Amino acid sequence: MKNKHNISEDYIITKYLKKLSFNKDETFNFKNDAAYFKIPKDKKLIVTNDTILETIDFFKNDPPESIANKIITCNLSDISSMGAIPYAYTLSLCLPKNINRNWLKEFANKLFYLQKKYNFFLMGGDLSRSKKIIISSNFFGIVNKNKILTRDGSKINDNIWVTGNLGDSSIGLKIIKNKIKINKKDKNYYLKKYYYPKHFLFGQKLVNYASSAIDISDGFYGDLNKLISSHNLGANIDSKLIPYSNRTKMLIQKKLIKINFLLSSGDDYQLIFTAADKNSLKIKKLAKLNNVKITKVGTITQKKGIYLDNKKINLINKSFQHFC
Amino acid sequence: MKNKHNISEDYIITKYLKKLSFNKDETFNFKNDAAYFKIPKDKKLIVTNDTILETIDFFKNDPPESIANKIITCNLSDISSMGAIPYAYTLSLCLPKNINRNWLKEFANKLFYLQKKYNFFLMGGDLSRSKKIIISSNFFGIVNKNKILTRDGSKINDNIWVTGNLGDSSIGLKIIKNKIKINKKDKNYYLKKYYYPKHFLFGQKLVNYASSAIDISDGFYGDLNKLISSHNLGANIDSKLIPYSNRTKMLIQKKLIKINFLLSSGDDYQLIFTAADKNSLKIKKLAKLNNVKITKVGTITQKKGIYLDNKKINLINKSFQHFC
Repeated sequence: MKNKHNISEDYIITKYLKKLSFNKDETFNFKNDAAYFKIPKDKKLIVTNDTILETIDFFKNDPPESIANKIITCNLSDISSMGAIPYAYTLSLCLPKNINRNWLKEFANKLFYLQKKYNFFLMGGDLSRSKKIIISSNFFGIVNKNKILTRDGSKINDNIWVTGNLGDSSIGLKIIKNKIKINKKDKNYYLKKYYYPKHFLFGQKLVNYASSAIDISDGFYGDLNKLISSHNLGANIDSKLIPYSNRTKMLIQKKLIKINFLLSSGDDYQLIFTAADKNSLKIKKLAKLNNVKITKVGTITQKKGIYLDNKKINLINKSFQHFC
Repeated sequence: MKNKHNISEDYIITKYLKKLSFNKDETFNFKNDAAYFKIPKDKKLIVTNDTILETIDFFKNDPPESIANKIITCNLSDISSMGAIPYAYTLSLCLPKNINRNWLKEFANKLFYLQKKYNFFLMGGDLSRSKKIIISSNFFGIVNKNKILTRDGSKINDNIWVTGNLGDSSIGLKIIKNKIKINKKDKNYYLKKYYYPKHFLFGQKLVNYASSAIDISDGFYGDLNKLISSHNLGANIDSKLIPYSNRTKMLIQKKLIKINFLLSSGDDYQLIFTAADKNSLKIKKLAKLNNVKITKVGTITQKKGIYLDNKKINLINKSFQHFC
């Protein structure tokens, strides 16, 4: 904790952030007022924007690796839901004075690890002092021209699919808030799901087969609603088909957790996508090939609103919105 | 102030922000997880990043138009210093609960005005709740291929130029902090310079004639230092040549303000640029044509550091950095 109040911002950039440029020409080694893009002729660049805030999206004493993982994962899932692969990102870091070298090291190392894993680099950004940690990122992805997946392409009778399991992350948050009592082994499982959500970048593989896609950042219901309400359709979901982890299935059976809670909260960072029934076989093959769990959970209907086993779901308004 | 705690974020987007998309295809009307870019074949896209925070870059009760003006101006001056013209931007808005409709209306209307004036649009962004106002923006500009102005192109004996007048904005801030007493007429002049700094977008005109450029966002000395230290050169500045407004000249004469203060603080959002002496005539003509005041203030030297009338300047470390 030595020198914890004395880390200059120049030092933070040189010591912890510079390596994240991957020495790309585009970044001018963080020495200019701007960075530039190199986009192949047959590709299109897309951008998405996400901000995460202390006490809202994470907590002060969360591991720095978890906070790094969160800003990247929420952006990767947006990029993926558009059918893109990652290219680069910018980072606006508002950090309190008491952030120390160890925090910075762990935060930057996690970013470095994720950049290597998913093949993207840091273009630049800015650093400011603030009372709470606030991290904003613009994330850039590449799509083949005219192959952008959008929210408004689904058609009546399309199947509704989800990747992964739903709700694990929201149980992790419930544990942190002491709102559920759970044995130690299960606790560690859920905390890991909350602190280190993972995204599979499956969207880009789906561009020729899916009719629409969205990532789950505000709970299954909320994001499914965005998918159908943009073009006035509805969704019929079969509760028996919704994918949960084995641990969560047990909690549901024991009535320790409600389905409605699992589907209306939590940053799962999974994808919801829709596709015509004729593409089902191809989609299943793609999922197997890419080692991604996918599950058909319902169908798109003409009747507006979300229905679970034919019962209409009342949606609660959320206090966070992003519009890109 | 009615309903001041009850403005939904959906409402903020629909009522105040949607019009800022200018109905551009690229934005998908803010209905998708991302926006895309349309870049002409012979052009290159660049990005810059700026964050402004309440109590650091502006104050809680500053006019919302001033805050809107600040986030746009600091980005425009970065774009201009790279030799680019504006294209679009994203906006991450962290707003306290007590922001009311009037604030939002005035803020959005100023953005709309500036977008029309300088021809760019809002691509998307996100909204969050926070205790203080924090606004982060990624700003995108367009350059002709291989015509990017950078910080590190200046050569020994190049002239050093600045646009506009220096220091007015920092006197405005001194007035707000009650650190200088001044008559009412002058006070209004300086407050306007502080609340509504203006940028001239002159950088793009200079791409064929300037060897390097940077915008002044941390004071003349600090930003000049970034320009020369990136490639180990120095600068010799003639104090008699530095451009000040007539009012500021009077304050200097009356010893009410020190030159050192004027040159080491303040968001002037003017440009410093360097150019070979042979280009001087052409540059003067361009400035006249574009109605931009420019002044030659010194020369680039081999001897490292900044010298004012041959006296070396000690630079103070600033608490804010942006690296793109």
